Amino acid sequence: MLIRAFVPAHITAFFVPVFHYEPLKAGSLGAGVNLSKGTNVFASIETGALERHIHVAFNGEPVRKNEAKITYHVAEKLVPEDFLGEVEIWQYFDFPNGYGFGNSAGGAFGTALTLSYAFGGTLLRAAHIAHEAEVIHRGGLGDVIAQLAGGIEVRVKAGGPGVGVVDNLFFEGYKVLVVPLGRLSTREVLDGDVVKAIEREGKVALETLLKDPRPERMMVLARAFAERTGLLGGELLELARQLDKNLSNPSSMIMLGRGLFALAREKEIESVRNLLDELELPYDVVEIYTDRPKVGRWMG
Amino acid sequence: MLIRAFVPAHITAFFVPVFHYEPLKAGSLGAGVNLSKGTNVFASIETGALERHIHVAFNGEPVRKNEAKITYHVAEKLVPEDFLGEVEIWQYFDFPNGYGFGNSAGGAFGTALTLSYAFGGTLLRAAHIAHEAEVIHRGGLGDVIAQLAGGIEVRVKAGGPGVGVVDNLFFEGYKVLVVPLGRLSTREVLDGDVVKAIEREGKVALETLLKDPRPERMMVLARAFAERTGLLGGELLELARQLDKNLSNPSSMIMLGRGLFALAREKEIESVRNLLDELELPYDVVEIYTDRPKVGRWMG
Repeated sequence: MLIRAFVPAHITAFFVPVFHYEPLKAGSLGAGVNLSKGTNVFASIETGALERHIHVAFNGEPVRKNEAKITYHVAEKLVPEDFLGEVEIWQYFDFPNGYGFGNSAGGAFGTALTLSYAFGGTLLRAAHIAHEAEVIHRGGLGDVIAQLAGGIEVRVKAGGPGVGVVDNLFFEGYKVLVVPLGRLSTREVLDGDVVKAIEREGKVALETLLKDPRPERMMVLARAFAERTGLLGGELLELARQLDKNLSNPSSMIMLGRGLFALAREKEIESVRNLLDELELPYDVVEIYTDRPKVGRWMG
Repeated sequence: MLIRAFVPAHITAFFVPVFHYEPLKAGSLGAGVNLSKGTNVFASIETGALERHIHVAFNGEPVRKNEAKITYHVAEKLVPEDFLGEVEIWQYFDFPNGYGFGNSAGGAFGTALTLSYAFGGTLLRAAHIAHEAEVIHRGGLGDVIAQLAGGIEVRVKAGGPGVGVVDNLFFEGYKVLVVPLGRLSTREVLDGDVVKAIEREGKVALETLLKDPRPERMMVLARAFAERTGLLGGELLELARQLDKNLSNPSSMIMLGRGLFALAREKEIESVRNLLDELELPYDVVEIYTDRPKVGRWMG
């Protein structure tokens, strides 16, 4: 049996981390956007072996247990203990790992969806397990609940799925430009001194957005958050300013990755493409994903 | 400006009403299914008049304020008091009103979505206002939050949007057969003696479903709920039994309407069609709607 799940990539625009010893009460406040590209997970389940085996591969390459702690956490919870057979979990990421696209949560949630579909479960229970794995192994705090919500999302109450509350902004005619330039460790940032500034600026951004809940306002607040926390500076800030000359809304930094994103109108895309081609930088233009994550039997 | 929203029809399979004087804490527990047909709402907004006018029409026919209390409640909240112009709200229902398809919530939610899109707001705030209008004017308790969730939904914690919690069941290859035969007043049922039986049987059904959360189990529990509460009996029960001969899962009663519904596999549909054609009964076969309600500018 082959099951496939799709979980959108999720970019955080600004956030406030909320730590809690109970994983379902840990989470984040903030806002972000879900993309039409993301993580595809294929679970192949074959019975009839003498033991219970679980294998994981990222982008076609098998990975060891300690390189895929989050996925193994999810699989261990969802593959029944008395299952005798081979479970292979193939995760394919449209964006590079560690660049701030929520791949870790996408892999966890996609794995939870495929295995729940195969062995029994529900959407919310799958999301619970993925969120818990993310929090415990510190992959992220708010990606799973944001991916469950879809669209341009605002986390208005922190917590895991079924505990936190996520709202959605209305939007019209936007695509998302992404410029992924490198990695930034969520774990290192959240362990650093910058957390105080993130908490302060994130709260201001959220309060302001809730008074005027529009995507255009979100981007202005995201940019202010990125600059005021000191996360966005130097060459990346220079690039953001160059992009802005071609856009009606400010670009901002992908939280947390070395990269930029922007909401772009159809007519603005050509000039941005020309600029980025000229600078020889990688980029992509994708749709905003407004559906739920998907799971179903894969017919090939 | 013309804005369009689509809200899926929602059939309740079984439920427990939860009353509360705060509308956002009122709601229901239970399970049901969202359909690919439902309510389309078009809001036409023209500025430049000397007064603030709101007009409502159901299926192309203008309705008076006291015939559309729920829609007017929503519109009064969302059209700014100082707006000078004409707001026309055109609601089109794919299923008849009062037959248990959540039309009242669909109209309220669709109206809230179009007006929020036009005048400012968010998905969750629109859902709040629609839920509140439903509860206050007693259109229903759980339809809005169920329509927000989509798919085959299980209301695991009662309350309005952002307060209640809704889960989703996984399913594969089902369409929904609906046999709408007549009206049943939600208000009259909820005011009657049957409420005690509904509360008792609804709780049993929910607890049992959560232990084995599959659509097939939901249908068995829905049927037991319908029969044990006494809501399903007589000719309608006879018809359900006839349908069952052609289906792998039991059919059940639409809560609350005089009608039946069933999850049907592709290969079962022809024999059910033949039966219903022979009996000269109205029916429809629709998809399960798994997306979010939609709203956007209408280009015609």
